[in-house]
Amino acid sequence: MTRILLCGANGKMGHVIRSCVSQRDDMEIVAGVDLNTAGTEFPIYASIDEVTETADVIIDFSNPALLDSLLAYAKRTHTPLVAATTGYSAEQTAAIKAASNDVAVFFTFNMSLGVNLLQSLAKQAARVLGGQFDIEIIEKHHNQKVDAPSGTAIMLAESINEALNTPYELVYDRHARREKRPVNEIGMHAVRGGTIVGEHEILFAGRDEQISLKHTATSKEVFAVGAVNAASFLAGCKPGLYTMQDLLRSTSDEEANA
Amino acid sequence: MTRILLCGANGKMGHVIRSCVSQRDDMEIVAGVDLNTAGTEFPIYASIDEVTETADVIIDFSNPALLDSLLAYAKRTHTPLVAATTGYSAEQTAAIKAASNDVAVFFTFNMSLGVNLLQSLAKQAARVLGGQFDIEIIEKHHNQKVDAPSGTAIMLAESINEALNTPYELVYDRHARREKRPVNEIGMHAVRGGTIVGEHEILFAGRDEQISLKHTATSKEVFAVGAVNAASFLAGCKPGLYTMQDLLRSTSDEEANA
Amino acid sequence: MTRILLCGANGKMGHVIRSCVSQRDDMEIVAGVDLNTAGTEFPIYASIDEVTETADVIIDFSNPALLDSLLAYAKRTHTPLVAATTGYSAEQTAAIKAASNDVAVFFTFNMSLGVNLLQSLAKQAARVLGGQFDIEIIEKHHNQKVDAPSGTAIMLAESINEALNTPYELVYDRHARREKRPVNEIGMHAVRGGTIVGEHEILFAGRDEQISLKHTATSKEVFAVGAVNAASFLAGCKPGLYTMQDLLRSTSDEEANA
Amino acid sequence: MTRILLCGANGKMGHVIRSCVSQRDDMEIVAGVDLNTAGTEFPIYASIDEVTETADVIIDFSNPALLDSLLAYAKRTHTPLVAATTGYSAEQTAAIKAASNDVAVFFTFNMSLGVNLLQSLAKQAARVLGGQFDIEIIEKHHNQKVDAPSGTAIMLAESINEALNTPYELVYDRHARREKRPVNEIGMHAVRGGTIVGEHEILFAGRDEQISLKHTATSKEVFAVGAVNAASFLAGCKPGLYTMQDLLRSTSDEEANA
Repeated sequence: MTRILLCGANGKMGHVIRSCVSQRDDMEIVAGVDLNTAGTEFPIYASIDEVTETADVIIDFSNPALLDSLLAYAKRTHTPLVAATTGYSAEQTAAIKAASNDVAVFFTFNMSLGVNLLQSLAKQAARVLGGQFDIEIIEKHHNQKVDAPSGTAIMLAESINEALNTPYELVYDRHARREKRPVNEIGMHAVRGGTIVGEHEILFAGRDEQISLKHTATSKEVFAVGAVNAASFLAGCKPGLYTMQDLLRSTSDEEANA
Repeated sequence: MTRILLCGANGKMGHVIRSCVSQRDDMEIVAGVDLNTAGTEFPIYASIDEVTETADVIIDFSNPALLDSLLAYAKRTHTPLVAATTGYSAEQTAAIKAASNDVAVFFTFNMSLGVNLLQSLAKQAARVLGGQFDIEIIEKHHNQKVDAPSGTAIMLAESINEALNTPYELVYDRHARREKRPVNEIGMHAVRGGTIVGEHEILFAGRDEQISLKHTATSKEVFAVGAVNAASFLAGCKPGLYTMQDLLRSTSDEEANA
Repeated sequence: MTRILLCGANGKMGHVIRSCVSQRDDMEIVAGVDLNTAGTEFPIYASIDEVTETADVIIDFSNPALLDSLLAYAKRTHTPLVAATTGYSAEQTAAIKAASNDVAVFFTFNMSLGVNLLQSLAKQAARVLGGQFDIEIIEKHHNQKVDAPSGTAIMLAESINEALNTPYELVYDRHARREKRPVNEIGMHAVRGGTIVGEHEILFAGRDEQISLKHTATSKEVFAVGAVNAASFLAGCKPGLYTMQDLLRSTSDEEANA
Repeated sequence: MTRILLCGANGKMGHVIRSCVSQRDDMEIVAGVDLNTAGTEFPIYASIDEVTETADVIIDFSNPALLDSLLAYAKRTHTPLVAATTGYSAEQTAAIKAASNDVAVFFTFNMSLGVNLLQSLAKQAARVLGGQFDIEIIEKHHNQKVDAPSGTAIMLAESINEALNTPYELVYDRHARREKRPVNEIGMHAVRGGTIVGEHEILFAGRDEQISLKHTATSKEVFAVGAVNAASFLAGCKPGLYTMQDLLRSTSDEEANA
């Protein structure tokens, strides 16, 4: 039974984490931290320094401002940390990485298990199909998103480029040129509309066949699921910096050895 | 039994037309015209002026250079004409339309029944959803296509704009701007890869729901099917210019009255 | 400015309705009814008989048990009613229809604008493609749903059958037979997994072309949007029974005349 | 420059192979075998025993009846063999495997590179998501196909079951039962319509996210492409039985070491 200390326990993501954990029989939340200490089946403290329970892993969905005390606590108590808060500065990111010398830290660009798996599969497909199949990335998001393409789409394109011998050029618009499509480009398409939470599709189009790898998120709760899986993986790990790729690899190995 | 005169009978599209007709029991080809007069179950003549059989309708998939003799024959013999050859000049297009004063002529941008139906459905959807749902068009074609977006995608966007109170702006690239999506635009996305024959999808994205209308062609034979259906509709029509929209409307009415 | 009386104002759907209305400048909620009368920008009464404000239309997302007082109020005050509660008995459904002799009532199987539009488009497509294209319906829902296929999928199939000359047979499983697909059937596929809210796709597959019409709902809030649109349409209507098809037709005519 | 001996050189697949090879600059066809010896840029012999040219690899798309002489030739001349003909009996399959003791033989269920890659990716995804995500397979084929689901769909399901700790049950129909979806099943859906060449989609549906892995074939030519790639890989290999999984692994390793 993995014991969790949940920082940001009364926040939006905190509640989703609590719901996730309650559906598993291999984990429990033993304590929470939140400015709002409204009670529940576990005690919630206003500050992490007040926590008296012992946990096997921390899940943090709180606030970048609390990072210092969080890292200090993790190091002092040797409790592995899933750092799932977003919006850290470059200095804070460096501090998180430095802390991983002393304690296990899980830190990744995107907490969704699915997107990280998609990234893995896309790299594998690119290694096989690169040079013979044309690659296009089509992402869809709601009409309030200001950036295009999404950060995740760029991350996927960069991962594909790592898998290819020669990086391809990212191309955003074809309407002004009149020429055949060169092989060495990745077409990027940012569809925007309604309240779409997030879709990322990687299309490999070859001679009379296509492979499409697609991830669809329908709520931000997928980040919670990813964080809970990360916590389960991280508990008991020795100091170091871990990412979702480590989690995926671990799961694969486990199955392979089963 | 509708009797067909097939011009371009030994061409690539001619053979597809023959295959289509042979699968229907309400039509037959009574004569063909082609420079290659290699025989078959019906006589093939080198010139339309040599044809002695009487037909109920002409299907022409030959060559723009033969238009004058084709129109003269249609008018002289009062035989309705499905003009399915592409690549006519503006003068030739005008001549086709002029001929429709004397004989029934079927002439349309795209002979595919499916694309024309898609156009109808998209207009209907735009009338209902316009203003509340965001509209995006995603088309996919092979990597040898030089134009982007496709002519059909533009035709679809223009049809949608006809259905809206206020025309929307066609937008081809969002990566350089950083702003929320305005309502009054249609995003146009030209995916290019492999040997994709042609896909056109119109996405209407609203609050927590999406409607997608999509046409996929997997060979150019769809134009043959469209032409054969047009011939079946056109036989017996009085002089006038007919399009696939007339065919669709006729089919709908027929069913409605059944 | 359309004035709304909202029954079930503090329920889950009530809150979504309130959010929808607050985003429109042509409507406002003037009063609510709910056992929970916790205050807000408009007064909430425990019973509809206590309401003193005058409304142009009622939106009801409450409980079947309250139907009698609801219908009595609507008739007595001549206030059009959008009946969006589900789970009515056959007797209650008959009572709703009877009430429409005295007051305008909007009543439909599925409040989602999108699904109702999909139904319209599918009928139109079936009229054109029926007999030539094979029809399959693929729906996807979460793993907690006990019925398969969904009620909406069956409604769509029945609508298609209305549009065809001869009704097609609904077929649920092909794995036990070994034969070519007959034309006169509609394949029904119930995909179940995860937390999928609801997808309905109608596939028309013909010779080398396919048309896919697809609706995706990502939250139950789409029913709220549909109800609010229905209210906007219904206010000022004379007595009668109205459905989403009337709303769609009205929108189309409006645009056509613009 | 890999030298190819093409058996079945004038058959339908033979012509597609010739077209594929002509587009590559690392391979050439040095001789063909076919009952129809109509000439071309390379000599075509009526029997493989008449071939005088030396080749690095044989691609066979001929006829099961010719297997004996084919295997004898491959062993005698130490020429690796890509066995791409279908319809072999169990005895013939055993003979092919036996021959691989003496010469490199490439033999696989499905020559399409894409389907084999899909199989790999699906196994990897199942290892990561199994137990947490529901798995459904949706395949689409033309209306003349008599088996349902397709052999490839079953192969994919079996591969997924290999990757899981506990095999899941294949379920073909849900309409007669009324219960929630159990975790330990794979839903199989056989969509049939029109002239669809072949689509296979594996859907992993979890909590608020889905991953879809999909392969679409638009002509049988994909088998030719797969065979040509197999030939390029097989030339120079030592005796043994090779499959598309070896080819995929080889490509991955090559890139990894680059």
